[in-house]
Amino acid sequence: MYVYSSKVVWTEGRRGKLTCGNGFKASFSPPPEFQGEPGPLTPEDAFVASVNMSFTLSFLKFAEQEKLDLRAFECNCNGIMDRVTPQMAFKRLVLHPRAVVGSDDDIPKAERCMDLAEKFSSVRNSVRPKVVLEYKMEIDKKKAPDNKAKDSEE
Amino acid sequence: MYVYSSKVVWTEGRRGKLTCGNGFKASFSPPPEFQGEPGPLTPEDAFVASVNMSFTLSFLKFAEQEKLDLRAFECNCNGIMDRVTPQMAFKRLVLHPRAVVGSDDDIPKAERCMDLAEKFSSVRNSVRPKVVLEYKMEIDKKKAPDNKAKDSEE
Repeated sequence: MYVYSSKVVWTEGRRGKLTCGNGFKASFSPPPEFQGEPGPLTPEDAFVASVNMSFTLSFLKFAEQEKLDLRAFECNCNGIMDRVTPQMAFKRLVLHPRAVVGSDDDIPKAERCMDLAEKFSSVRNSVRPKVVLEYKMEIDKKKAPDNKAKDSEE
Repeated sequence: MYVYSSKVVWTEGRRGKLTCGNGFKASFSPPPEFQGEPGPLTPEDAFVASVNMSFTLSFLKFAEQEKLDLRAFECNCNGIMDRVTPQMAFKRLVLHPRAVVGSDDDIPKAERCMDLAEKFSSVRNSVRPKVVLEYKMEIDKKKAPDNKAKDSEE
């Protein structure tokens, strides 16, 4: 069992300061459409980001276990909020990961890591909205990093 | 309907950079118990913080609507993660808000704002774990801000 904590303190208007258990600190406000301003962290962004980061870190863990030759990885996540039951809530989250791998042989490994990450991400398993995974794979056209170093010496 | 987005980019090991739709940026890692380090944002902290911030901003919205004489507000949130189904997931979130109000008459108003905030928080309505609300109310012993200014001139 693990416990994760945060503390928020109201500063003024609809603004506050957040301190997370791991030491991270930030100012926050609502998004501009709910009387906030551009720039600070918002609850909606933090929610979508928590799913995105958890999926990504799960993927990196499985990529290590599978000895995947991973060259680059990024992931966009869109959260769609709408009226539900009749309160507002997230209805759907779409993860768009993009992995760049070393060779053709890495593609099925990377697909397996995507599926495992989606299944075992602890935050993904803690949210109500449907989560959709739409991934892209690419093969790195350049040589492996070891060869690249030699090339540059020539 | 509203869409909230984030982008994460893998940097090295189990680390990455997060950019949120509202412009907020941060480095992230897993928590120390999962091969991360103290300091950065983590998915687990972001998840708990998203519920905490959403509840707090909902409370502040209802406090404005109810013309609550609110002097201070802070909220701790603890998320308990454990094995569920059999993956890891958050099982329970406990919100511990503390509101300081101007007079006895504000206590029932503040209680009403707490209950409304818990019911209408969009992020709270998007999470699976049970959410428990354990609030504390206090009355500000000092005079109202207008009187405080006069006092300091004496």
